[in-house]
Amino acid sequence: MYDILKTINSPADVKKLNKVELETLAADIREALFNRLTKIGGHFGPNFGIVEATIALHYVFESPKDKFVFDVSHQSYPHKMLTGRKNGYIKDECFKEDSGYTNPDESEHDLFNVGHTSTSVSLATGLAKARDLKGGTENVIALIGDGSLSGGEALEALDFAGSELNSNLIIIVNDNQQSIAEVHGGLYKNLTELRETKGAAANNFFKALGLDYIYEENGNDIQAMIKVFQKVKDINHPIVVHINTQKGKGYKLAEENREGWHWCMPFDKETGKWNVEFPAESYTSLTAEYIMNKAQKDKDFVVITPAMPMTAGLFEPMRKQLGSQYVDVGIAEEHAVALASGVAKAGGKPLVVTNATFIQRTYDQISQDVCINNNPVTILLNYTSFDGLTDVTHLGIFTIPAFANIPNLVVLVPTSKEEYLNMLDWSVEQREHPVMIIMPGNAVTSRASDKDFSTLNTFKTEQAGEKVAILALGDFYQRGQELAAEIEKELGFKPTLINPRFASGLDKKLLTNLAKNHQLVLTLEDGVMDGGFGQKIAAFYASSPMKVKNYGLHKEFYDRYDPQELLRQLGMMTEQIVADVKNLI
Amino acid sequence: MYDILKTINSPADVKKLNKVELETLAADIREALFNRLTKIGGHFGPNFGIVEATIALHYVFESPKDKFVFDVSHQSYPHKMLTGRKNGYIKDECFKEDSGYTNPDESEHDLFNVGHTSTSVSLATGLAKARDLKGGTENVIALIGDGSLSGGEALEALDFAGSELNSNLIIIVNDNQQSIAEVHGGLYKNLTELRETKGAAANNFFKALGLDYIYEENGNDIQAMIKVFQKVKDINHPIVVHINTQKGKGYKLAEENREGWHWCMPFDKETGKWNVEFPAESYTSLTAEYIMNKAQKDKDFVVITPAMPMTAGLFEPMRKQLGSQYVDVGIAEEHAVALASGVAKAGGKPLVVTNATFIQRTYDQISQDVCINNNPVTILLNYTSFDGLTDVTHLGIFTIPAFANIPNLVVLVPTSKEEYLNMLDWSVEQREHPVMIIMPGNAVTSRASDKDFSTLNTFKTEQAGEKVAILALGDFYQRGQELAAEIEKELGFKPTLINPRFASGLDKKLLTNLAKNHQLVLTLEDGVMDGGFGQKIAAFYASSPMKVKNYGLHKEFYDRYDPQELLRQLGMMTEQIVADVKNLI
Repeated sequence: MYDILKTINSPADVKKLNKVELETLAADIREALFNRLTKIGGHFGPNFGIVEATIALHYVFESPKDKFVFDVSHQSYPHKMLTGRKNGYIKDECFKEDSGYTNPDESEHDLFNVGHTSTSVSLATGLAKARDLKGGTENVIALIGDGSLSGGEALEALDFAGSELNSNLIIIVNDNQQSIAEVHGGLYKNLTELRETKGAAANNFFKALGLDYIYEENGNDIQAMIKVFQKVKDINHPIVVHINTQKGKGYKLAEENREGWHWCMPFDKETGKWNVEFPAESYTSLTAEYIMNKAQKDKDFVVITPAMPMTAGLFEPMRKQLGSQYVDVGIAEEHAVALASGVAKAGGKPLVVTNATFIQRTYDQISQDVCINNNPVTILLNYTSFDGLTDVTHLGIFTIPAFANIPNLVVLVPTSKEEYLNMLDWSVEQREHPVMIIMPGNAVTSRASDKDFSTLNTFKTEQAGEKVAILALGDFYQRGQELAAEIEKELGFKPTLINPRFASGLDKKLLTNLAKNHQLVLTLEDGVMDGGFGQKIAAFYASSPMKVKNYGLHKEFYDRYDPQELLRQLGMMTEQIVADVKNLI
Repeated sequence: MYDILKTINSPADVKKLNKVELETLAADIREALFNRLTKIGGHFGPNFGIVEATIALHYVFESPKDKFVFDVSHQSYPHKMLTGRKNGYIKDECFKEDSGYTNPDESEHDLFNVGHTSTSVSLATGLAKARDLKGGTENVIALIGDGSLSGGEALEALDFAGSELNSNLIIIVNDNQQSIAEVHGGLYKNLTELRETKGAAANNFFKALGLDYIYEENGNDIQAMIKVFQKVKDINHPIVVHINTQKGKGYKLAEENREGWHWCMPFDKETGKWNVEFPAESYTSLTAEYIMNKAQKDKDFVVITPAMPMTAGLFEPMRKQLGSQYVDVGIAEEHAVALASGVAKAGGKPLVVTNATFIQRTYDQISQDVCINNNPVTILLNYTSFDGLTDVTHLGIFTIPAFANIPNLVVLVPTSKEEYLNMLDWSVEQREHPVMIIMPGNAVTSRASDKDFSTLNTFKTEQAGEKVAILALGDFYQRGQELAAEIEKELGFKPTLINPRFASGLDKKLLTNLAKNHQLVLTLEDGVMDGGFGQKIAAFYASSPMKVKNYGLHKEFYDRYDPQELLRQLGMMTEQIVADVKNLI
């Protein structure tokens, strides 16, 4: 097993192989992918589809002198195996050594930590620009999937490369006819036309931008890939190499269901069944249910997503059923948000759904297109919690500092199923405010909730007490409950427990009243404290005798951490906080 | 004077005019533009170039039923004159009634408050989508200049419109062959090709995205414009109407110098001389001087700007002299920042320059492409101060809350000429950190400064005192000096005055030491307090006896305010703060 792969310690070893051995290497890489992915999951389709092209890249070019930039880098597993990191795939005990993305800390063959889409061409032009300033001669190669092309950052960079960079840059467009979900946008019609004409169509998006262009049909044929890369190696201007590959190549189930196998949990290779139990009810399934019901009842309601339907539990049949009330703009977050602003302005009821980490692309659109105009757009974010996605490129913990400081934006942080659904429905229906809702990351819990949130910044006292008040935001409300119980047990008095509900403003009346019979306010937030909720509370009381202590995450790019261990390090376990309270009162 | 314009109270009045009267109306509009612009300044070239097209729009379409979205909306003055707001141009006492951008508070003919580029197509698709959900039949028209096309948000929206919207949308591409500075990018080569072939070139960027396309050469001919708009009115699918216009049409100086007359200060119509005295030395001129010297000495140094060279004082001859060490990416902020990250990774020394308000486009690129990778990119921002740009769409006051909470980013806030230049040079030279530098907005002042900032978050005590410590950030340092003097005079003790220099972290040692002989800390920041610097100080002392009071702006979209009056309303005048201090100690 892995006979050839075992011999590969660096790209130099790839260059020594003959044609048959190269084919065996491809088979070995797929076996190694199965080994890792069946056991710990990860990106499936992108890696299985790019095996041959990656082998050819390392066969033809001279990494690390020549520089590869992988878009999203979720297709970099074969590259990692060929650059000294095969153990992360063939030895189970080494899985943790490799992240799921390129990572300069792992290898000099990785240039950037990348996890968001559409950045590769832009980053590569920067490498090329510095090379030109320094008089270097290396090749710079960006590998970008068709799904990533629709992102503004990629489009801006292609436009730039088409006229402003008059030196070597090789842009490999890996066309597997699939984004995360199905592809959307006029560009994809053009890619289809180009595939159907084997690159000969007069209508050519890349050429229209001034880029040289070449097409290769057999993207899963090592020799064909070697040939095309040899042709463009050391080219003296930017060129697009459009290659046709099969997403999920080598696993029938993945070839047939490209969306379902973009990414996978640990699974059984024979059956394809994921080894994971999904709860019958989750905030995601509740979201999908809400959306389907709402859409049927209200023709003005429209769901907009930048290629992230599954983050709201919208399986394909649901998307079909939603029809014109469902808009997948492709990977184009900026457009998704501005589109929603237009819809809201004209009387529609738009709900934008995506992952928290990707909404960062739209800071300016949320501020300018939505909030200055005060258009009633609802933005629903999944995976904001510290225990959601733990890769450094996918953290949601910056959401509140990044967005809750934008004027006019109402940021709602629900703490139960009832509260979540009531906030969602209130937000979609009201016409006064742009709203961002943080989808809970916890298991579903039930607790009665208000239905109207139109009096902004009204915190809810869930338990009235004395001496100590706990303001526990969103997913950390349950920790607040536990803390309140423990304080009562340990310290012999009942503290006040408050569900702030709004992360974007203060309930000044409630806070002022607290001063009457409280001496300490604790804030618990599921995110970074800098610029966050707790610091606003601290500032409110800063010139008064009230003591405040903030609990939350530090301003740091955490990476692949153990969430519970992190809380302990941060002194946020209940017993640690109780100890603090003893010292402070 | 204004014989025809005076008769226009709404678009209905435009429709009554005959050919000759329409021509007179165009002349009247230009006279009215001169009246306002010579006296109070504003966007010149875009408005003079779009007069005929605007008249034709209102002649053919039925605003407000049909909906216009103006990109940037800096070309909307003629539209305003035709929609009941002519007094803002012909009556000097009414100038203040109209903002320089579209504004729904002014008129139902304005759909959005817009001031950033590249948003119109996206917003318009939203209007069209809602129309389709509601079964409406109105036309939706986006008017976008060629300079704005290169922005990611516009490109994403064009891609979307090219396949996902199968209903009426008219995208007028106003091609005046000019961005703010010269145009950049492959797209512009294609626009040139299209102009030269009168729209017939096989290579067609818009068609490649699946869009229908029509070209009209005579964009400054009212009848030609009427004809082309009549042709596309009520069309059942998206179409690009590419029109060729002359920026600055009707004023020889502006026709000849399109960059210089994109925007103007009050000026003398005869000579074109601006009625404004520029100081011999400004932070902008110091920046340009630094850049020119540095570039000559260091071939790894490169200035990157998204179409904002003048924000760093880089006049055209300087840009020419910089050669390959100057990169204008066009209006493409995301690409500018990611490009810089690539340059830095490969050993170059990139300096990105733009206005604070536009860097908002790049929150995600700064976080992901730059800061996670810790690449030594320097981002230099002009107009962050509350008294810089006061239009609601151009405020810089959100810069610190938005960016100083991103991990790894060092945000430097200089307070004097020496400090500014030392920070700039330190940042460009060091290889450890991504850095954002806030260019001072004050008049140039001189004060000795450290040269090394590599020990991060070291605040500087400029005056050691007692009881009260003033932390005065950036442009507000001078207010801090004044306040310190006034406290000494009024209250009889010398307070401590601190120049924090870093807005992105705390000097915990210094802050801890302050507790020894101070009871009150005042923070002064030139920006919004929510998520900003002062709240971090408040949080630091929150569970200690130290009192803290934050001064700064509220989380609010201020619009066209009087800066000094705003400070007074916020209680930030020196005498107001002294009164607070009396109460607090």
